[in-house]
Amino acid sequence: MDQLQKRPANYVPLSPVGFLPRANAVYGDRTSVIYGRVRFTWRQTHDRCRRLASSLVHTLGLHRNDVVSVLAPNVPAIYEMHFAVPMAGAVLNTVNTRLDAKAVAAILRHAEAKLFFVDYEYVRLASDALQILAGSGAPVPLVAVIDDLDRPTGVRLGELEYEALVAHGDPANVELPLLEDEWDAITLNYTSGTTSAPKGVVYSHRGAYLSTTSLIMAWEMGAEPVYLWTLPMFHCNGWTFTWGVAARGGVNVCIRENRPAEVYRAIARHGVTHMCCAPVVFNILLEGGDADARLGAPVQVLTGGAPPPAAMLERVEKIGFHVTHAYGLTEATGPALACEWRAQWDSLPLSDRARLKARQGVSVLSLSDADVVTDDDRMARVPHDGKTLGEIVLRGSSVMKGYLNNPEANQQAFRGGWFMTGDVGVVHPDGYIEIKDRSKDVIISGGENICSKEVEEVLFRHPAVADAAVVAMPHPHWGETPCAFVVARDKDARVCEDEVMAFCRKHMAHFMVPKKVVVYDALPRNALGKVEKVKLRDAARKLAPPAQKTKGKQATTASGGRRDEQQHVMAMSRL
Amino acid sequence: MDQLQKRPANYVPLSPVGFLPRANAVYGDRTSVIYGRVRFTWRQTHDRCRRLASSLVHTLGLHRNDVVSVLAPNVPAIYEMHFAVPMAGAVLNTVNTRLDAKAVAAILRHAEAKLFFVDYEYVRLASDALQILAGSGAPVPLVAVIDDLDRPTGVRLGELEYEALVAHGDPANVELPLLEDEWDAITLNYTSGTTSAPKGVVYSHRGAYLSTTSLIMAWEMGAEPVYLWTLPMFHCNGWTFTWGVAARGGVNVCIRENRPAEVYRAIARHGVTHMCCAPVVFNILLEGGDADARLGAPVQVLTGGAPPPAAMLERVEKIGFHVTHAYGLTEATGPALACEWRAQWDSLPLSDRARLKARQGVSVLSLSDADVVTDDDRMARVPHDGKTLGEIVLRGSSVMKGYLNNPEANQQAFRGGWFMTGDVGVVHPDGYIEIKDRSKDVIISGGENICSKEVEEVLFRHPAVADAAVVAMPHPHWGETPCAFVVARDKDARVCEDEVMAFCRKHMAHFMVPKKVVVYDALPRNALGKVEKVKLRDAARKLAPPAQKTKGKQATTASGGRRDEQQHVMAMSRL
Repeated sequence: MDQLQKRPANYVPLSPVGFLPRANAVYGDRTSVIYGRVRFTWRQTHDRCRRLASSLVHTLGLHRNDVVSVLAPNVPAIYEMHFAVPMAGAVLNTVNTRLDAKAVAAILRHAEAKLFFVDYEYVRLASDALQILAGSGAPVPLVAVIDDLDRPTGVRLGELEYEALVAHGDPANVELPLLEDEWDAITLNYTSGTTSAPKGVVYSHRGAYLSTTSLIMAWEMGAEPVYLWTLPMFHCNGWTFTWGVAARGGVNVCIRENRPAEVYRAIARHGVTHMCCAPVVFNILLEGGDADARLGAPVQVLTGGAPPPAAMLERVEKIGFHVTHAYGLTEATGPALACEWRAQWDSLPLSDRARLKARQGVSVLSLSDADVVTDDDRMARVPHDGKTLGEIVLRGSSVMKGYLNNPEANQQAFRGGWFMTGDVGVVHPDGYIEIKDRSKDVIISGGENICSKEVEEVLFRHPAVADAAVVAMPHPHWGETPCAFVVARDKDARVCEDEVMAFCRKHMAHFMVPKKVVVYDALPRNALGKVEKVKLRDAARKLAPPAQKTKGKQATTASGGRRDEQQHVMAMSRL
Repeated sequence: MDQLQKRPANYVPLSPVGFLPRANAVYGDRTSVIYGRVRFTWRQTHDRCRRLASSLVHTLGLHRNDVVSVLAPNVPAIYEMHFAVPMAGAVLNTVNTRLDAKAVAAILRHAEAKLFFVDYEYVRLASDALQILAGSGAPVPLVAVIDDLDRPTGVRLGELEYEALVAHGDPANVELPLLEDEWDAITLNYTSGTTSAPKGVVYSHRGAYLSTTSLIMAWEMGAEPVYLWTLPMFHCNGWTFTWGVAARGGVNVCIRENRPAEVYRAIARHGVTHMCCAPVVFNILLEGGDADARLGAPVQVLTGGAPPPAAMLERVEKIGFHVTHAYGLTEATGPALACEWRAQWDSLPLSDRARLKARQGVSVLSLSDADVVTDDDRMARVPHDGKTLGEIVLRGSSVMKGYLNNPEANQQAFRGGWFMTGDVGVVHPDGYIEIKDRSKDVIISGGENICSKEVEEVLFRHPAVADAAVVAMPHPHWGETPCAFVVARDKDARVCEDEVMAFCRKHMAHFMVPKKVVVYDALPRNALGKVEKVKLRDAARKLAPPAQKTKGKQATTASGGRRDEQQHVMAMSRL
């Protein structure tokens, strides 16, 4: 048995990049990408990606493991980069467009980016970031602008331009590096960018391949999907569906922004069958849709933030969105648990269905194990009783390679053969995992993770602040927002709420700024001196703005409102 | 990027065996196996497999790479072995129950089987095989009988018995070898058993994992399937669905035989959603079903032999079977191409749909490449014109590790970075591959591959036969059967058809025996002395029995009959 060696015909390194040449061969004449009036087939997308890869290698001289950063919304260019950049042997780093210049600069510096693609809309943000980078003495990457493909604007930043790189590449004569080791890095995604040791999550080709196929199966995405890009591709590479749509020979419908009209128009015009989104998008869908609107055909929605509350779920499903709830985190290449629906639940009343659907679910196939373990040295698996709390841990080939240049974070995250999520949950008797308390440090606002420690660090830099702690506060639109508790340095000097917020607005991305600043005489601390965040979260809950009266009849009952609130607080999914 | 090392949490060797502990964790209370009045849950199946694995290691002392052969129909034991045997580090060898004792002995000898599980129905065949083995001086394996689980018979062969091994294993205290290398062998499937160098196809854990997930996707098998075992598990491990049903948390409905009444009863009683089968099973379904019968709910059928002819397809689909056509071979871990259906074809007339459905299709996801190349040293890819003939070649992680102890066969099969299927086909402009001429040596009869060379070798051993060649002859029920052309040794001595058939019946499995023996003065040979099998196939076609008048109205038209015949001859799929 052992003498049978690996051969080129039976051992091909796993990589989701391979889905593109296959799509070219077997789905060549089908539509691959739609953006405004632009349409490509898989043959064209394959050709364009090869051209770009050829330019990256031969014109720009990129090498294996060089990082290519991109700051762009869901336009065709960022989609194509998911294939072209790793084809060139380089590593794709998609940057969250909601960050501020400082955070972007910190990422470019930490990633040691060699090339930086910037969508024309983000030229200002990019320039600011590059200036900060240059000012710090760090090497500055090459810059290439991505103009709008449908309606070119002529905006430039430096001399390189995306379409020119595509046009000048030679698809016929590409000497591209062959992937030799599936453990090689394919992408780099930052979960946090402003601290001294940013957490850059590295995926391998192998991990990305296995996650992609695993999520296709978890979501049961069949052939010929029409996939609407409501989820930013910079979120875990679009939860791997950047590659997954190619595997399925589907259509990528790209839109610049999730405006309700645009979303509904795209669904109607292109016959959208699938979309992923953070729960905040449900608000957009409900705001934009007519109360009695119905989709022509059902749209499968994979949502990965907080589970939608029962009332919202009912309204969204009435319109024709069929919601699957998943839980995951960047470190697990997107969804790690999915609430696989069981046929026997179909006949249950809505409230029961919503309760079951709100559970985070069972591990996707690429994880060989997912469980909840005790918070002690034994790390014992908790009983499946739906009650015993423990930390959710994961193991499997879809777990990241690790954090880039951050041995400390790696040491914390990988323990006892597990990846530690930091989230607290229970296992129900039927094996479904439910989160009961989210990682202390993460606030999920509109689908974006905010690291409370990062906000605290900024607060500490305010001259009048002696002590500070940031926790999540429920918010009717954003799910959660940061709430800051501060103590004045000088008992006489008053700390002003507005001034602290203004200070924050200057030093961090807008979505990270606390919506509320509370001044305390002292923060509650335990005997060991640790801030008791549980108490602060209780306080924040009481300070939270009331649940909005949402449009439509179903959502305005008191109990519906309460459920909303409670579930937002319990919403721990960290995608 | 490179300094991020593999860790137990993020690098788990791929193996379909892992689907079982996952099924235990996430589908534990769901039904796993139904056989007669026997029902197991995934928790029980997991427990039983661990017990068996523990007995294999601790009681019987099996080691890594030891071969465990099994001769059994689709009963729970052979299903469980697909997990328990590799769990013990051993390699599972499922033996075709239709072989004769000599062929079974040849397999046991070549595989150097250490343990031999025998279903009670096959005790006679196994005893004969073991006697041949002992007579040849080859080591004889340990033998364990599998009694009927639903209605025990008390039949024994030696002292070991399957249920006792399960019962005595200790699931709590199992020290099982951990899989360290996903390239390790998991199963061994013989495509041919009686020649001097039998072809034992070895799969790796990695290949089996990737094939399993790839076929789940190709067939779009969703969660909670109810899978009926009409396809023998000894065929490429049930085209990997042995493992696939575990991955999906489905139900395995096991039946001993594909009798029409039993198939229809199982479908109705258990709500079968999926089944795989050779095309011969369609005859069974049509014979058994009422002409106007309708299934309560549609059943997805993956068929891997010849594409069903249009008339048959129409009748079968009318009953409620939804047919997907795949092409594959043992060496590719089952289906390698699947005729992925396109929505745009739905509106075509039946004859066009049947023509499209009869094409072998596009590569499954686990293949990184499948193409047709010219039959010369260049091995150039043929144009996608639906006309240019070439050999179908495959590359990807679902291609076998290789043939066991058969370097010659490996050298022939692996060339130019490809696996050579030996089948001749074309590529259509839409990328779909269609077979135009099957490998010269293979005859597919009732879903079983018959190697014409093996039949010829037996014929040559007949004292009166001077020359012989065997080709496929169309057959209305079996698709194809062997047709032998023989030349008498002595021009005066007559070779008698019946006597030759009787001789064959004595020296080979029944399904391999030529249904027709034709005496020629000389075989047609080309300038190089090679038998011109094309001419013999033409002759055989003219000698073929007429297409049966099948029951029901749709299939009896003359054109339907002709199509039947033509398509059976063109039916090249080698699963």
